[in-house]
Amino acid sequence: MKKISECSPLEEVSLVLRLSDVQIKKTTTNADYASMIAFEGIDKIEAKMWKFTDDLREKLVSGEVYVVDGRMKDYQGKLQLNITSIRQVDENDHVDLDSFYEKAKISSDDLAKNINEYFKKIENEYLKNIVSVLLKKHFKSFFEFPAAVTMHHNYFSGLAYHTYSMLRLSDVYLEMYPFINKDLVYSGIILHDLGKLLELSGPKGTEYTQIGKLIGHISIGANEIYATALDLGIEKTEEVINLIHIILSHHGQMEYGSPKEPLTAEAELIHLLDFGDSRMASLEKEIIKVKKGEYTSPITAFDRKSFYVPKID
Amino acid sequence: MKKISECSPLEEVSLVLRLSDVQIKKTTTNADYASMIAFEGIDKIEAKMWKFTDDLREKLVSGEVYVVDGRMKDYQGKLQLNITSIRQVDENDHVDLDSFYEKAKISSDDLAKNINEYFKKIENEYLKNIVSVLLKKHFKSFFEFPAAVTMHHNYFSGLAYHTYSMLRLSDVYLEMYPFINKDLVYSGIILHDLGKLLELSGPKGTEYTQIGKLIGHISIGANEIYATALDLGIEKTEEVINLIHIILSHHGQMEYGSPKEPLTAEAELIHLLDFGDSRMASLEKEIIKVKKGEYTSPITAFDRKSFYVPKID
Amino acid sequence: MKKISECSPLEEVSLVLRLSDVQIKKTTTNADYASMIAFEGIDKIEAKMWKFTDDLREKLVSGEVYVVDGRMKDYQGKLQLNITSIRQVDENDHVDLDSFYEKAKISSDDLAKNINEYFKKIENEYLKNIVSVLLKKHFKSFFEFPAAVTMHHNYFSGLAYHTYSMLRLSDVYLEMYPFINKDLVYSGIILHDLGKLLELSGPKGTEYTQIGKLIGHISIGANEIYATALDLGIEKTEEVINLIHIILSHHGQMEYGSPKEPLTAEAELIHLLDFGDSRMASLEKEIIKVKKGEYTSPITAFDRKSFYVPKID
Amino acid sequence: MKKISECSPLEEVSLVLRLSDVQIKKTTTNADYASMIAFEGIDKIEAKMWKFTDDLREKLVSGEVYVVDGRMKDYQGKLQLNITSIRQVDENDHVDLDSFYEKAKISSDDLAKNINEYFKKIENEYLKNIVSVLLKKHFKSFFEFPAAVTMHHNYFSGLAYHTYSMLRLSDVYLEMYPFINKDLVYSGIILHDLGKLLELSGPKGTEYTQIGKLIGHISIGANEIYATALDLGIEKTEEVINLIHIILSHHGQMEYGSPKEPLTAEAELIHLLDFGDSRMASLEKEIIKVKKGEYTSPITAFDRKSFYVPKID
Amino acid sequence: MKKISECSPLEEVSLVLRLSDVQIKKTTTNADYASMIAFEGIDKIEAKMWKFTDDLREKLVSGEVYVVDGRMKDYQGKLQLNITSIRQVDENDHVDLDSFYEKAKISSDDLAKNINEYFKKIENEYLKNIVSVLLKKHFKSFFEFPAAVTMHHNYFSGLAYHTYSMLRLSDVYLEMYPFINKDLVYSGIILHDLGKLLELSGPKGTEYTQIGKLIGHISIGANEIYATALDLGIEKTEEVINLIHIILSHHGQMEYGSPKEPLTAEAELIHLLDFGDSRMASLEKEIIKVKKGEYTSPITAFDRKSFYVPKID
Amino acid sequence: MKKISECSPLEEVSLVLRLSDVQIKKTTTNADYASMIAFEGIDKIEAKMWKFTDDLREKLVSGEVYVVDGRMKDYQGKLQLNITSIRQVDENDHVDLDSFYEKAKISSDDLAKNINEYFKKIENEYLKNIVSVLLKKHFKSFFEFPAAVTMHHNYFSGLAYHTYSMLRLSDVYLEMYPFINKDLVYSGIILHDLGKLLELSGPKGTEYTQIGKLIGHISIGANEIYATALDLGIEKTEEVINLIHIILSHHGQMEYGSPKEPLTAEAELIHLLDFGDSRMASLEKEIIKVKKGEYTSPITAFDRKSFYVPKID
Repeated sequence: MKKISECSPLEEVSLVLRLSDVQIKKTTTNADYASMIAFEGIDKIEAKMWKFTDDLREKLVSGEVYVVDGRMKDYQGKLQLNITSIRQVDENDHVDLDSFYEKAKISSDDLAKNINEYFKKIENEYLKNIVSVLLKKHFKSFFEFPAAVTMHHNYFSGLAYHTYSMLRLSDVYLEMYPFINKDLVYSGIILHDLGKLLELSGPKGTEYTQIGKLIGHISIGANEIYATALDLGIEKTEEVINLIHIILSHHGQMEYGSPKEPLTAEAELIHLLDFGDSRMASLEKEIIKVKKGEYTSPITAFDRKSFYVPKID
Repeated sequence: MKKISECSPLEEVSLVLRLSDVQIKKTTTNADYASMIAFEGIDKIEAKMWKFTDDLREKLVSGEVYVVDGRMKDYQGKLQLNITSIRQVDENDHVDLDSFYEKAKISSDDLAKNINEYFKKIENEYLKNIVSVLLKKHFKSFFEFPAAVTMHHNYFSGLAYHTYSMLRLSDVYLEMYPFINKDLVYSGIILHDLGKLLELSGPKGTEYTQIGKLIGHISIGANEIYATALDLGIEKTEEVINLIHIILSHHGQMEYGSPKEPLTAEAELIHLLDFGDSRMASLEKEIIKVKKGEYTSPITAFDRKSFYVPKID
Repeated sequence: MKKISECSPLEEVSLVLRLSDVQIKKTTTNADYASMIAFEGIDKIEAKMWKFTDDLREKLVSGEVYVVDGRMKDYQGKLQLNITSIRQVDENDHVDLDSFYEKAKISSDDLAKNINEYFKKIENEYLKNIVSVLLKKHFKSFFEFPAAVTMHHNYFSGLAYHTYSMLRLSDVYLEMYPFINKDLVYSGIILHDLGKLLELSGPKGTEYTQIGKLIGHISIGANEIYATALDLGIEKTEEVINLIHIILSHHGQMEYGSPKEPLTAEAELIHLLDFGDSRMASLEKEIIKVKKGEYTSPITAFDRKSFYVPKID
Repeated sequence: MKKISECSPLEEVSLVLRLSDVQIKKTTTNADYASMIAFEGIDKIEAKMWKFTDDLREKLVSGEVYVVDGRMKDYQGKLQLNITSIRQVDENDHVDLDSFYEKAKISSDDLAKNINEYFKKIENEYLKNIVSVLLKKHFKSFFEFPAAVTMHHNYFSGLAYHTYSMLRLSDVYLEMYPFINKDLVYSGIILHDLGKLLELSGPKGTEYTQIGKLIGHISIGANEIYATALDLGIEKTEEVINLIHIILSHHGQMEYGSPKEPLTAEAELIHLLDFGDSRMASLEKEIIKVKKGEYTSPITAFDRKSFYVPKID
Repeated sequence: MKKISECSPLEEVSLVLRLSDVQIKKTTTNADYASMIAFEGIDKIEAKMWKFTDDLREKLVSGEVYVVDGRMKDYQGKLQLNITSIRQVDENDHVDLDSFYEKAKISSDDLAKNINEYFKKIENEYLKNIVSVLLKKHFKSFFEFPAAVTMHHNYFSGLAYHTYSMLRLSDVYLEMYPFINKDLVYSGIILHDLGKLLELSGPKGTEYTQIGKLIGHISIGANEIYATALDLGIEKTEEVINLIHIILSHHGQMEYGSPKEPLTAEAELIHLLDFGDSRMASLEKEIIKVKKGEYTSPITAFDRKSFYVPKID
Repeated sequence: MKKISECSPLEEVSLVLRLSDVQIKKTTTNADYASMIAFEGIDKIEAKMWKFTDDLREKLVSGEVYVVDGRMKDYQGKLQLNITSIRQVDENDHVDLDSFYEKAKISSDDLAKNINEYFKKIENEYLKNIVSVLLKKHFKSFFEFPAAVTMHHNYFSGLAYHTYSMLRLSDVYLEMYPFINKDLVYSGIILHDLGKLLELSGPKGTEYTQIGKLIGHISIGANEIYATALDLGIEKTEEVINLIHIILSHHGQMEYGSPKEPLTAEAELIHLLDFGDSRMASLEKEIIKVKKGEYTSPITAFDRKSFYVPKID
């Protein structure tokens, strides 16, 4: 069957695709339509269903793989698929369903082991307790959720992989800057994106939840830690206040959604690591798709700039 | 005794002042000094103590009234007092201590009655419950706290007066725009600044608490509502999610500290009322000090612009 | 006949529409085309005529109702209609023309009565005179004009309704903040958008005039008041200078087209009321089109954000 | 007698100075003080009178030359003079009063002749008439006023000199870009700052007038042209609308106080010439005070940047 | 044969076009496509080839004239051509190839003569030498290159014409502001865009080179001057440092790509002349395409604003 | 002898200080004064000499240690020293001169060894050569220069220490993101601040050079690499273009002085490491001066924010 990368604008196509992030929206003329992201391995394309009938509404489950008919369309180099009909794949299609679900480079079991190694290094009792309670409560989802719908680390175990990557990167910083509190850094990294477990719907057919849209992962995370601290009777300790401060400030600036900017070295470091790891992960995702000497597609996380891959061995 | 407004730069003075918002800071050369605001009725002046000895550290209690010796200094039209010594006022000074503590135009009892009238109009059970629990829990401080250290409504019962003022202003909006949910607006207004009861230290000698500096009233308020909703078992209801959304978004834009911008008409309205009431209160505070045909002192809330009072009867 | 909300992209359609804000533009390749807004009750859609012949140029009168043939097209959820031919509706079409012209909630007669009540409360002679002269001069258009081509209050009597709404909202502010000059506020509100009577072409087929595009309603309004004041010999009075200041500053900030920012409490209040009323009116227009629990179409006045309607009774 | 440039901070001084732009302000503690600019030839210094008694209020006339006693003070390299007493100069002081009033490089008579040469080249009747009427009405002040209180061209005939300079600079542009309308450019340049004749108080002791502060020279200029056009019965002509557009847009961007940005090539050109001439005049003022190889004082018009003078012959 | 300006969206067309700035890009779905600008005299249109086969890759040479088949498409008033096939023009097409290559108003020989006149006025030996060496080294391309791919002066000899225009405009400035160093201004203008000779590929089929994309004309120019100065042994002279400073700062602000902002009057003037000449040239290019009383197409250099041409003789 | 941290405003003091970054400036009234930074170990204070006589001009050598008399002054918590006289320290003062010169944590010999280890890992011949030539040319200053006058790493060997720190931090990134070109990263880090060796005057009495002020370290570095590459005949290789791109883009954004923003993953990574290391070094410098539970002085690199040190063991 045809691949996305072989399609041209205006072409009538039939493709096997995983439909995700399905959203029912209104056109400016007030009619319903469905907007979603269609995945084919690591390739993806925006898709729309303009005639969104009740029939389709029932058939379409976010995160499932379908045989999709439609028409390609371009927006200044950004291809879009206008879907006219879908049907679920069956045995006769001989499709390897697994290949439609992207996974982290490391298995979720290994991620759990690796992150646990860091957790064991936390010596402060309050911090150890609070991380322990929250990791247990959310254990399964923590190691299965992606870190995003379409941005960096948007795959199975993406959240845990991003967390592990930040922990690794923190090691040299802690060595070069020994005045930084290690326990606060490890706890802060492990919990910094915890709120995403409620902001997103799950590892399959990932979309934003209602609480995700109106409250957001930063405040959800702070709420969860505060409630846990209340249960443990430690909500007024220096440890808890500092931990919540890290969650609130990890986007670095108010204009990026942090209600407080970093006021401690630990909070500043976690912001730097989160920012650095997401930048590099966003680049990796696109650069591995092209050859040396070529430019990537425009990358959303970099204001749609294209990056160049040096032709150097 | 001399008044602040009679002092000139470089003059050696002896004044009776309420010393508030006392902060121990470091100079760039790493010595301790104390920075504070000194009040004389509604007039105020920034004050510093450069030689901050242990002796002074014990004597100085934020919010108390002292006989203060020092020297006036100017920063481009902004007078400052460099304090050299203080002693607490005693009977022989014949000072009317009450005149040093500013109060709202309406007594705290009447504010409680007025706000209760609005509370009784809330019909939705979930919203009624959550407001009721939180008002009871914080009843005393809710009607005594100021809304700020130095900005608008920075006086005894200032928080309650600001809340009442917004409720009053909401009435015509609700009448002109009947599609807005009244219950959500009333609950949202009453709770929008609840976090300030933990962000500030109290009605007397008001200063920022440690939790106030690292977490802030927006997130504290959200945390409190979430914890209360958990207790009531209603944390996943539409009502609670919308109420928390209002708290988080009431500064209107992310760059002003709201982790989410208003996404409902009710949240947008409460932001507009909060903004409008604080602007007018900031103006009132300065305009009543000058005569028609004159310009006010530069006003912080308006980027240090001076306002003109039209000479029209 | 089909409705806009029933159309899908790429569909060939035949609709009855009121064509408004017709503009003859050049493509980047220098050919003429017509761009306009097509209304069907309160629903609207952008429309283009790419082959804009002399024949069409004669037939097409902005503000009239036509039977329109064309093809639907989408721009990322923003439907657009590419018109191929039009003909004026006739008796045989059995179309209720009235339903194509939106009106304010209150009749223009009642608006005149209501606004007159406020006018009568102005006691200052100079202000009373100048408002009186200008209202008389523009009486008919003042109560028939819309306040905009496509934004909020873009309907018959929209300007008067917006004016009345602001007067209503000013009442509680004047009560809570008694230091504000009532006469200046009432006069300022009544005249703040007067310039729109020359900036826009009229209540039907509303478009920007040449003077509107090059000078704009803020400066036109100031010019009109200044000329009237010269006639009355009062151009140097405190009242006139303050009134013109209000007109010039009512957009609040220079970057939004105000050559002066508010420097009086009255000017600041009128800016707040104008901003607040337009925000809520923009929300109302979209929210009444959707159901509780749904999101609106993206709203231009809010940077194309969609708003959510809480599912609370 | 001592010169400003010979004074050091903290020194008690006695100087002969022209006191200008006198403003009575309030300290943050609500006492009156006077703020002004003191000139000594082309050198100048900010000055304050903290004890501003009624006695002083009578004696002090903006624009006059006084013997001034006071104390020097520094604000990070910005000297300031705190005045303690003043007395008017008399014969015994043997002061050359003329040297205290800066003038344009060209006499006001020659400026009138030169600008008239350009005026005579205007062929369009409407534009010729309107410029003629306004020049006659304001003839004396047009050739005597400065263009500013403290910024560029703040001297006797400064406004006319700036106007003449822009006319000269426009010549090569008109030659290189012949599609531009010469009549509109000449008229626009001559009238672009006309509003300053009402915004400023006059050539001596220049300060902002009340109408200048609340309305500003851009809108005053537009008002004057509109009123004149009404008298001539040509207020709806293409010429007048374009001329007013030029006045309104000559600051180039809304955020710099233009209610409309340039929409014609003529308006864009006049903005470029106004901007270019003021930048170079601001530089000239400071660069002629220093030697090659040195840096100037920080220049306000360039965000307090210091400029370097190349050591090249 | 049909002209671009006669085409409508969705039309199948066959046109004779010069294809320039050909770039091979990736769609978001990772397929190759070609994006280019197609010229027909001074008219131009964006063009895409979605099926970019190896066959096409060989046939298509940037800067050549082809008979092109394809389909017109619109993006909100911005027409685009989707090319399906091309073939090089031959004799039978009877096409005047010269008319497809735009040239400066003045021949390259005359430009060389005119610029040489200015060069001869440079008296300083160091500056004279360095300009002389670099002009000789790049003589041919200096007088043939355009100044841009699509913006202002994007035609044969465009760079030299822009340089000459700036030299002409500098004359009155040097006369009105005699404190400015003439030699530095002339040298700076002549060399300010020298780096474009390496940033762009040449006068025909102009596109950005790899060094142009990664280093840019500002730094290339600085590098070239520095290397030349090293050869001449004058790299530490005041002249060379000032000349390089002019090249680096001629975009005026860091956010527009200047690593240093102007710190000398000469650098500031060259920035003003470069900015002014490009603004007026961008306007001329569009205004000469429309009639008096009309608006131009949106102009990229002015944030897609359309300009109006006054209907005044 | 007294220490800086024991001084109060207005006090007359006598201190032993290293005077550095001496700049002769003009007051707004055109008199000469000297502005400098005075160091006492890691503590520092701004200092001014208002009466800057020829005598002083001779005596004062930037970077030397003096016995200084003067008076303390405060600018809102920022102490300043107004110097009245200086004399060089002599034997009788019994001062340990070494304690006045701050050094990196690691000796310059060890830094040379450590950086050489990384250099040896570069395999690409072109990159190896260019780094080798430049390191040899600047060997002594590379390992002795500071990285700044007053900001982070402003001490003996500060530049080399910062370079080494970035190399260390790059290790985990290269491991986690194997698609990145190691050779380019190592070469880029080693050379990224090379231009500072000409931008700054040296390790003692560090100040900006004339070439530093007008050209800046980013462009100086690019010039040096380009000239070296020309000598080696490799100026057009992919390696050199990419290396220069890294130098130009390492400030990350144009508004921070980079004429090009990062367009390769290697350039982006080096920007992230440079930014991260300077942020943490700026924090370390201040945090080690205060105790747990305290706030630091305002930190310039963080918009004068004060950071909090968590009271957690």
